[in-house]
Amino acid sequence: MSEVEDFLKVARAAKDAATVLAPLPRAPKDLALRAVADALVARSAEIVEANAADVEKARAGGVSEAMIDRLRLDTGRIEKIAAAVREVAELPDPVGEVVRGSTLPNGLELRQVRVPLGVIGIIYEGRPNVTVDAAALCLKSGNAVLLRGSSSAYSSNTVLVRIMQDALAATEVPAAAVQLVPGQTRESAKQLMRARGLVDVLIPRGGASLINSVVEESTVPVIETGVGNCHVYVDADADIETALSILINAKAQRPSVCNAAETLLVHADIAGEFLPRALTALKDAGVTVHGDERVRAHGADVVAATEEDFFAEYLSLDIAAAVVDSLDDAVRHIRTYGSGHTDAIVTRSQRAARRFVATVDSAAVAVNASTRFTDGGEFGFGAEIGISTQKLHARGPMGLPELTSTKWIYTGDGHVRG
Amino acid sequence: MSEVEDFLKVARAAKDAATVLAPLPRAPKDLALRAVADALVARSAEIVEANAADVEKARAGGVSEAMIDRLRLDTGRIEKIAAAVREVAELPDPVGEVVRGSTLPNGLELRQVRVPLGVIGIIYEGRPNVTVDAAALCLKSGNAVLLRGSSSAYSSNTVLVRIMQDALAATEVPAAAVQLVPGQTRESAKQLMRARGLVDVLIPRGGASLINSVVEESTVPVIETGVGNCHVYVDADADIETALSILINAKAQRPSVCNAAETLLVHADIAGEFLPRALTALKDAGVTVHGDERVRAHGADVVAATEEDFFAEYLSLDIAAAVVDSLDDAVRHIRTYGSGHTDAIVTRSQRAARRFVATVDSAAVAVNASTRFTDGGEFGFGAEIGISTQKLHARGPMGLPELTSTKWIYTGDGHVRG
Repeated sequence: MSEVEDFLKVARAAKDAATVLAPLPRAPKDLALRAVADALVARSAEIVEANAADVEKARAGGVSEAMIDRLRLDTGRIEKIAAAVREVAELPDPVGEVVRGSTLPNGLELRQVRVPLGVIGIIYEGRPNVTVDAAALCLKSGNAVLLRGSSSAYSSNTVLVRIMQDALAATEVPAAAVQLVPGQTRESAKQLMRARGLVDVLIPRGGASLINSVVEESTVPVIETGVGNCHVYVDADADIETALSILINAKAQRPSVCNAAETLLVHADIAGEFLPRALTALKDAGVTVHGDERVRAHGADVVAATEEDFFAEYLSLDIAAAVVDSLDDAVRHIRTYGSGHTDAIVTRSQRAARRFVATVDSAAVAVNASTRFTDGGEFGFGAEIGISTQKLHARGPMGLPELTSTKWIYTGDGHVRG
Repeated sequence: MSEVEDFLKVARAAKDAATVLAPLPRAPKDLALRAVADALVARSAEIVEANAADVEKARAGGVSEAMIDRLRLDTGRIEKIAAAVREVAELPDPVGEVVRGSTLPNGLELRQVRVPLGVIGIIYEGRPNVTVDAAALCLKSGNAVLLRGSSSAYSSNTVLVRIMQDALAATEVPAAAVQLVPGQTRESAKQLMRARGLVDVLIPRGGASLINSVVEESTVPVIETGVGNCHVYVDADADIETALSILINAKAQRPSVCNAAETLLVHADIAGEFLPRALTALKDAGVTVHGDERVRAHGADVVAATEEDFFAEYLSLDIAAAVVDSLDDAVRHIRTYGSGHTDAIVTRSQRAARRFVATVDSAAVAVNASTRFTDGGEFGFGAEIGISTQKLHARGPMGLPELTSTKWIYTGDGHVRG
């Protein structure tokens, strides 16, 4: 069979499975998830063996040890993956929730009820744990899932999906509800992006270039996730100690994640007092500052920033920095260079906080708090499939309800329209 | 200037206007809408004059009188358009609504708040009243709007937009928040479909071919609306009188709209009793039935149905009809041929109703009620921008809240992540 036929077979099987899975209530879905968790632990030797092949191939290909560590699975890590699946089973089921409802003046009973989306495609990189995490979240929310991971993890992903399917086969959830997109070529990813009518939504999880290419090429609706050029704006009325602790936390506590800060903006009126201390604190935290001219006046170690620096999602111990003349200039800077993820203001002024919150157009706005809190776990969602930076359907951390649509149901007694 | 430059100028102006409009509270938006309504009435002579030019051109082009009637504006119709704008002003403002909120365990105050989408593009056909209706709904929900109507109504639309802009100029809502896409060529519509980054969402309003071409060509996220191949399924346990009245209402009360029924499915066990009466009632209502072999056995006037008939959105006094052997077969038929708009079951069986509601995958499912109730007005929304048949963001009738996104706001006291 050709790669296209292979893909269509898998996608149609997922679609059929979705129609069986969608109306299932919570109990059989939770049982299925626990069966998956048990199977992953019981068959961890198979997983470790398949993973060793991926690791060997990566090492032969000269992949860095840091990347290899992200790829590697051992029994401890597999137990953690299984534990995460059990946690998803514990979460409330979003399906069936009545979102709105009323009795209309004519007596029709109207309800808007959460239903699964149908078939969700996930395109992702690196870590094979995403294979299981994403599948668990999709199943729990009543969706079938088509997984397209990195070719570097293809052996691991193949075994993980086979184990999940085997476990599901003994449950009410159809085994075909979890599928790995066959093939490792660029073409197989394209199939998934063009499967309008078979796939209801595509969620890319990975770096900016992966996400951009999916957005450009996909005819299936996409939920953009995760690119974060987050700003910390230190207002004229900021408390200096608060600003310093938020800045260092947002930048350096975990620089490799999308909710880490990438740009510091400082109001001109406080720059003289704040910047010398901030630059020292950043230096002590190992951070390289890429500053505009007005920032460079306050520190010898500041590298000259180019315009690219202000667009950058470093994901490293680097930060761009600029001095602005007003809160509105800070907002304009964020609108121009930001990615619409999370932007923070540090201020004691109620008026400044209100204005910043009202005019910054991002998924999350933090007032006197680190940008690092934009996270499904921190928000209390229990699990997160990604952080949406688009405005349609879902914006910000996406939990289980964001993996659903709704259906209107109205019930009458022979009602006709006059 | 080239057409591309013309378009970009207009789109950028709309985007700038959106940043001013988004944080405005309800009062200035309502004042602006009332100013628009007043101006439309006061300047109706200008509108009638521009409209006469469109009508003359249409007549010279040999357009049917029915189409010309849809195009025509007179003072009475302009007053109705203005009244609709005043009604939108009376509706609650969705912007600022707190959708969810809590205090997190660490004391952070978390709020998810409705915010405008930004810039909404509307591509539509025929009636010039859509120009004003769509603009009013977008402004009320804090969005700027780029309007791309039919070239047949270009003179009318140009004057309507100019009058709205003139009225807005004296209010807090920027005049540039309402814009007509310049030019009448196919290219000008394409500009709008490719304006990713400038336009946040595109809503096509019109027939299936318009909607499909927008879905295919657009890189801007699209909300599909309005194609309705709605089904009435008469279950084995149906009350015959109820089934007849729902069928005739759904098909014949207003056949030109998307929530009218286009296909009748009848359970085999009730076909012998129901179909002879149904075919007579449909004939009396002037409806032509396109039936499968088992339907044709019950009536001499039934035309043989092709597979296309079961896909068709007739929007006329025609209906496709088939006999099915089970409720599940009816659902499979709806999944295969339907458009995911509205499907109705007529049954006395609670079990059948539950199964139909659970397994039909459409924006709305009606139980013992006509499909004609799927409508923003009937649902109590007060206004409707269209009926979404897609699953992401909005599904079913779209009112003002469906023209918004959300923003997460969290407020702390120097909170950092440990």
